[in-house]
Amino acid sequence: MELHLINPNTSQLMTQKISESAQSVALPNTNVIAVSATHGPASIESAFDDVIAGAALLDAIRLGEQQGVDAHIIACFGDPALDAARELASVPVIGIAEAAFQLASLVSYRFGIVTTMQKTLPASEHLLKRYGYEHLCSGVRATNIAVLNFEDLQEDVYIRLKSECEKAILLDGAEAIVLGCAGMSKLAHQLTLELDVPVVDGVTAAVKLAESLYQLNLNTSKKGLYSSPLPKYFRGRYEHWSA
Amino acid sequence: MELHLINPNTSQLMTQKISESAQSVALPNTNVIAVSATHGPASIESAFDDVIAGAALLDAIRLGEQQGVDAHIIACFGDPALDAARELASVPVIGIAEAAFQLASLVSYRFGIVTTMQKTLPASEHLLKRYGYEHLCSGVRATNIAVLNFEDLQEDVYIRLKSECEKAILLDGAEAIVLGCAGMSKLAHQLTLELDVPVVDGVTAAVKLAESLYQLNLNTSKKGLYSSPLPKYFRGRYEHWSA
Amino acid sequence: MELHLINPNTSQLMTQKISESAQSVALPNTNVIAVSATHGPASIESAFDDVIAGAALLDAIRLGEQQGVDAHIIACFGDPALDAARELASVPVIGIAEAAFQLASLVSYRFGIVTTMQKTLPASEHLLKRYGYEHLCSGVRATNIAVLNFEDLQEDVYIRLKSECEKAILLDGAEAIVLGCAGMSKLAHQLTLELDVPVVDGVTAAVKLAESLYQLNLNTSKKGLYSSPLPKYFRGRYEHWSA
Amino acid sequence: MELHLINPNTSQLMTQKISESAQSVALPNTNVIAVSATHGPASIESAFDDVIAGAALLDAIRLGEQQGVDAHIIACFGDPALDAARELASVPVIGIAEAAFQLASLVSYRFGIVTTMQKTLPASEHLLKRYGYEHLCSGVRATNIAVLNFEDLQEDVYIRLKSECEKAILLDGAEAIVLGCAGMSKLAHQLTLELDVPVVDGVTAAVKLAESLYQLNLNTSKKGLYSSPLPKYFRGRYEHWSA
Amino acid sequence: MELHLINPNTSQLMTQKISESAQSVALPNTNVIAVSATHGPASIESAFDDVIAGAALLDAIRLGEQQGVDAHIIACFGDPALDAARELASVPVIGIAEAAFQLASLVSYRFGIVTTMQKTLPASEHLLKRYGYEHLCSGVRATNIAVLNFEDLQEDVYIRLKSECEKAILLDGAEAIVLGCAGMSKLAHQLTLELDVPVVDGVTAAVKLAESLYQLNLNTSKKGLYSSPLPKYFRGRYEHWSA
Amino acid sequence: MELHLINPNTSQLMTQKISESAQSVALPNTNVIAVSATHGPASIESAFDDVIAGAALLDAIRLGEQQGVDAHIIACFGDPALDAARELASVPVIGIAEAAFQLASLVSYRFGIVTTMQKTLPASEHLLKRYGYEHLCSGVRATNIAVLNFEDLQEDVYIRLKSECEKAILLDGAEAIVLGCAGMSKLAHQLTLELDVPVVDGVTAAVKLAESLYQLNLNTSKKGLYSSPLPKYFRGRYEHWSA
Repeated sequence: MELHLINPNTSQLMTQKISESAQSVALPNTNVIAVSATHGPASIESAFDDVIAGAALLDAIRLGEQQGVDAHIIACFGDPALDAARELASVPVIGIAEAAFQLASLVSYRFGIVTTMQKTLPASEHLLKRYGYEHLCSGVRATNIAVLNFEDLQEDVYIRLKSECEKAILLDGAEAIVLGCAGMSKLAHQLTLELDVPVVDGVTAAVKLAESLYQLNLNTSKKGLYSSPLPKYFRGRYEHWSA
Repeated sequence: MELHLINPNTSQLMTQKISESAQSVALPNTNVIAVSATHGPASIESAFDDVIAGAALLDAIRLGEQQGVDAHIIACFGDPALDAARELASVPVIGIAEAAFQLASLVSYRFGIVTTMQKTLPASEHLLKRYGYEHLCSGVRATNIAVLNFEDLQEDVYIRLKSECEKAILLDGAEAIVLGCAGMSKLAHQLTLELDVPVVDGVTAAVKLAESLYQLNLNTSKKGLYSSPLPKYFRGRYEHWSA
Repeated sequence: MELHLINPNTSQLMTQKISESAQSVALPNTNVIAVSATHGPASIESAFDDVIAGAALLDAIRLGEQQGVDAHIIACFGDPALDAARELASVPVIGIAEAAFQLASLVSYRFGIVTTMQKTLPASEHLLKRYGYEHLCSGVRATNIAVLNFEDLQEDVYIRLKSECEKAILLDGAEAIVLGCAGMSKLAHQLTLELDVPVVDGVTAAVKLAESLYQLNLNTSKKGLYSSPLPKYFRGRYEHWSA
Repeated sequence: MELHLINPNTSQLMTQKISESAQSVALPNTNVIAVSATHGPASIESAFDDVIAGAALLDAIRLGEQQGVDAHIIACFGDPALDAARELASVPVIGIAEAAFQLASLVSYRFGIVTTMQKTLPASEHLLKRYGYEHLCSGVRATNIAVLNFEDLQEDVYIRLKSECEKAILLDGAEAIVLGCAGMSKLAHQLTLELDVPVVDGVTAAVKLAESLYQLNLNTSKKGLYSSPLPKYFRGRYEHWSA
Repeated sequence: MELHLINPNTSQLMTQKISESAQSVALPNTNVIAVSATHGPASIESAFDDVIAGAALLDAIRLGEQQGVDAHIIACFGDPALDAARELASVPVIGIAEAAFQLASLVSYRFGIVTTMQKTLPASEHLLKRYGYEHLCSGVRATNIAVLNFEDLQEDVYIRLKSECEKAILLDGAEAIVLGCAGMSKLAHQLTLELDVPVVDGVTAAVKLAESLYQLNLNTSKKGLYSSPLPKYFRGRYEHWSA
Repeated sequence: MELHLINPNTSQLMTQKISESAQSVALPNTNVIAVSATHGPASIESAFDDVIAGAALLDAIRLGEQQGVDAHIIACFGDPALDAARELASVPVIGIAEAAFQLASLVSYRFGIVTTMQKTLPASEHLLKRYGYEHLCSGVRATNIAVLNFEDLQEDVYIRLKSECEKAILLDGAEAIVLGCAGMSKLAHQLTLELDVPVVDGVTAAVKLAESLYQLNLNTSKKGLYSSPLPKYFRGRYEHWSA
C-alpha cells in the first residue's frame, strides 16, 4: 500500500526521523511516503501553531489523494485538522494521538501521557475527551522539552523523558505510557525495555492501524460529518482551493 | 472602545450586514471596526472551511492587536480558531456561539439551536461540549439553508428559519432559540416578537459581552493556555508569522 | 434602566458596599436599586441559610416586578432561589455566580474559585455542575473567612484572600480567579492588578450582563421551566402569596 | 422508633393519605408521626412552590428534633430542602424521590418516572443528576394531573396515570416505574399488579429505609456538608431561627 | 422471610462471620440462610477471581430459587454476577456494594471507600460508575490487607483499617465510610463509635434492603434486562444449566 | 505469529465460520488457532450466558499461554471476561467489540451498532461506556435474530440485518456500522458494498489489531489492574486453578 505520512511541521530532520521510525515497523509491501508541510511552523507547540499547521497540511492531504495514496497519517500529537482532512479524503486519515490511545488501551487499563511543553496539556485533554479516553488516562505530564529538541536525541533529553515516565507510573498509576510527540517515536522501544511497561508511540501505532484498515478495505465514510465540503470560492492565499 | 468585528469568511456583503447588526446594539462610544477575512472561503460550512478560515482570521487578530483594538469578535458560529486567537491577543476575544449560549442560558433553562446545513450539526455539538452547555440545549436543528443565502434575506429564507424554530419549541422543548449563523443576525428581533420566546443572535450578544469586559477591565489571561506562543520560524505562505 | 440589586442577606452594610461596587461599573443611564432582604439570615453560609434566604428574596423579586424594574440580580454567590425567581419574573434574573463563571470563561481557559467557608465548597460544586462549568474550573478554595468579615474590609482579610488566590494560580493552575462572595466585590480590581490574572467579581459581572440583556430586549422565557407558577392557596407565614 | 413523616404542603387530606400509606408498611414498633407544613403552599408544582415549602418544612424538622424523633421523611417528590434539613438534623433525613430511585434500581435496570405536571420535569432531571441515577432512568413522563387531584383518587386519575405508566414501559423501555408524587402512594400496589412490573412509591420506600438506618444505628454525618449551620441572627419572619 | 445470604468465596469461616453479622441486624421473622460457594476461589481479589466466583455463585442462586427464598444477597464487595443473578431470580438480588452506597448516601454527602488490596481499586471505580455514585465518593483507599485476614480479626488488622479510614476522613473529605469487603462486616459498629462518622457495612445494609423490598412486595422486574435467559444447551462443566 | 482465536460459545460450526473470516484477512505468517470453549453455553445472549462463558474461556486463555501464543482474541461481542483474561495473559488480549469500536471510529464520526437480541442492548451500552465510545455511537439496534441463526447464513437473516443497518443510517445518523455479533463476521464485506458506508466486523478488526501489537512488541502491562492474580486455593469445579 501507499502510506502517506504527513509531518505537519516543516522540520525536514524530524520528517526523516519519523519516516525511519514508520519504516521500521511497516510491512514489506507498505511504501511509506513521508512529507513535511511546505508551509507553516517549524514545530507545533500552541493552539496557534496547531491552526496554522492544520491549514497547511490540508494541501498535503489533497496532493496525496491526487497521487492515489491508500491512507494518510497526521504525524503530530495534536491531531491537527483531522476532521477537515477526513472530509477531503476518500481513504482513511489517522491521527497519531488517536492511534496511540487505541493501542495503549488494548494493553493497559490506564495509560499516562508524557508530552513536551506545559502549554500543550489542555490540547491533550481535548483529545482525550474528543476520542473518549479521559477515564482511561491516569494523567498528562509535561517534560518541558521543546519539540525540536527531539530532532537530534541528546542523552539528557532521553533522561528527562524517562524520568517523567517513571513519575507517571509511580505517582499517577500509569500502567502504560503514551508518548506525546511524534519526535519521540524512536525512543519507544528503549523506554518499553527500561520501564517494563508498554510505551506506545503514535507514529508506529498509526502505521499499523493504516495497514489494518487497508487490509480490511475500510475507508472514510462519506455519509455525514466526513462528506466532501461543498465546492465554493476561496480568496487570496487559499485561492487554489476554489471550486 | 474600539471593537474589532471579524467576519472570518470573505463575503463583503455579509460583513456589512453583520456590522449593521452590531452597530444597532453598540453603545454610543463603541466604534465597531468590521472586517472580512482577506483570505479563505466565501462561507464556512464544513470542518475544512473552518480550518482554512481559522488560519486566515489570525492575520486579522494580529492586525487588530497592532491597531490597539479593545476586543475582538469572531463572527462565525463555529468560533473558529478561538483558542489560537486568544493566544495572540492581549485583549478579549469572543466567539459568537459562546456569546449566544451564555445569554440564552440567562433567560431560559433549555435553548435550541437552529443552524444552516445538516453537515454542521456535529460542530454545534462540539461547541456545546467545549463550553459546557450540552445539558442546557434541547437540540440542534438544521434548516439546510446555505450560509450565503443569508446575504440578502429573502422571504422564503425567513419562513424556513422560523418554521424550524417553531419545531424546536414544540417538539424539542426549546424555551429560547440560539441562531446558528452570523448571517441570521438581523432576524433575531423579528423572530423574538413572532415566536414569543427569546431569540439570541451571537453577533449582538458578543458586542454586549465585549463592552462588558471592557468596562470591567478584564483582559485575556496570559497565564496558562492563552499565554503567547513561543516565537519560531514559519515557512512559505506563513513566513510573515516568523519571529 | 432600572436595575434591581437584591442582597439576599439582611446586612445593610453589605448591601451598601455591593451597591457602591455595582454603581462603579454601571452605565450612566442605569439606576441601581439596591435592597437587602427584609427577612432571613444575616449571612448565607450553609444550605440552611440558603433555603431561608431564598424564600425571603422572592418577596423582593415580586416587589421589583410590581415596581417595573428591568432586571434583577441575586447578589449572593450561591445564586439562591434562582429558578424560582425566574418563574416569578418577566424580566431577566441573574445570579452572581453564573455571571462570574460566564465572564471568567471568556478571558481564561480554566478559572479558580476562592470563597468563604469550607462548608460552602459543595455549593460551589453544585453551581459549576448546574451551569456546566465543571471542566473549566481548576478548583474551589476556601479562605475560611466568614461572610460578615467582608462588611468592613480589614487588611488581614485582604491578605488571606490574596494568599488563597495565589495558591489557586500556582498549585491548581487557575488562569483567572472568580471571587466566591458578593462581599469581596470591591477587592476585584486591586487583586487583578496584584495577581496579574483577571479576577472576576460576580456583582459587577451581573450588572454588565443585566445591561446587555436589557439593550438586546431579551427577557426571561415564559415557555417551559420558567413559566409562571399556578396560582394557589398559601397558609400562615406565606399567605401573602395566595392567589 | 419514632418516624417523623413531613408532608411539606399544607393539605391535611393529603397528609392523612400519606400517613395511612406509611402505616400500612411500617413495622409494628414504628410510630409514624405525620405532620403537614403549617406554612406554605397547598401543593408543590413549581420551583417557586418548592422554595417556599422548603423554608417552611425546616420548622418541622426542628420540632421533630426537639421531640427526639429517630428519622425524618420529606414526603414530596422534589425532595425540597433536603441538604438544609440534614444540616439541622442529628438523625437521618430521607427524601422520597431518593428513596424511590434506590429501591427501583434494586429490582430493575432502568426505571421510568411518571409524575404530575409537565413543568416539574426539569425538577426530576435535577434529582436524577443529584443522586446519580440519570443513566438508570428510561425517561420522565408527565400526566398533567395536578397534585391535589390525588387527594381523593377518582377513577379517571388512576386511568390516566396507568396509561402513562404503560407508555413508559412500551415506548421508553422502563422495567419498573417510580411514582413521581407522594399523593400517588396508595396506587403503587394496584399498579404493580396490573402492569406486571415493580411500581415504587417513595413514601413507603422511605419508611423502610428510615427503619433500616435506625436498626443499623446510622445517623447523619456531622462532618462536612451536613455539619450544623453557624448560629447567627435572623430578621423578621425568620427571627425564631436566631441563635 | 427466607433470606439467602451467599458468600461467593469458599471460606466457611468467613461465611459464618458474615452470617452472624447479618443475623445481628435481621428482624425476628427473618431467617438468614447463609451459604458458601461450593466451587471457586477461597477469596475474591482480582477480576479473575471475580469471574470464577461469579459463575459459581449462580448455582447458589438457582438452588435458592428452587427452595423458594424471598431474596438473595451477594456478599462480596465486587457484586459479582449481579445482573446474571437477577436474570435467574424472580425475587430481589442485592449486591453488598450497591447496598452500602445507597445507605451511605442517605447519611452523608460524600463517602469514602476503604477496601482490601490495591489491585481491587478499579473494581470499586467500576461499581461507583455502574450505580451512579462516582460524584458522591471522596475516594477509594486500599489497606493492602488480604481478604482472608478478615477471617479472624487480629488487632493489627483493625488498627490498619481504622488508620486508612482516618485518612479518608482527613485527607479526602469523607463524611462517611463504606467498608469494601464483606469480611469487615463485624467492625462497622466499633468504627462508627471511634471515628464519629457513619461506617456502613454492605452485608448488614443488604439485609435491611432485602427486608424492605420483601415488605413492600417488590420483586425483580422480568421485563427488559432481567428477563429470564433463553433456554439453551450447555456443555461440559456447565451441562447442568442445559434446558 | 500464533494468534489464538477463542470463540467463547461451544458452537463448532460458528468457530469454523469465525476462523475462516479471520484467516481471510490474516497476514501470511499469522497462524490462526481457532478454538471453541469446551464448557458453557451454545450461544451468548444474556448476562447469565456471559458469566458462564466468561469463566469457561479463561481455561482457553491459560492453555494458549502455555502453548506460547502471541495474542488472544475473545470472539464474542460482549467481550466476556476481558479484564480477567488480561490478568492471566502476558501477551495481548483483544475483545471484538473493543476492536470494532476502534476501527469504526477511525473511518466515521458516529457509528451505529446492529446486534442480535433486544435483551443484549444494555450489554452494548456497558461496553460503549467501558471503552469511552458512548458519544461516538449513534445508537444500538437489535435485529432479534438469535446468535445461532448466524451459523448458516440464510438469505432472510441477511435481509433483516441489512434492513436494520439501513435504519441505523437513515434514522439514527450512523456513518458506519459495527456488527454486534461474531457470527455476522462474513457479512461485513457485502454489507459495506451494498450500504456504501464502512461496515466493521470485530473479528477481522481484532485480527489486525493483534498483528499490529505483535509487530510493535506491545504486550499486556503487568503493572496495575492487569497484574497476575494472587495464587490461592480453588474448590470443586475450579480446583484446577489452585496454586
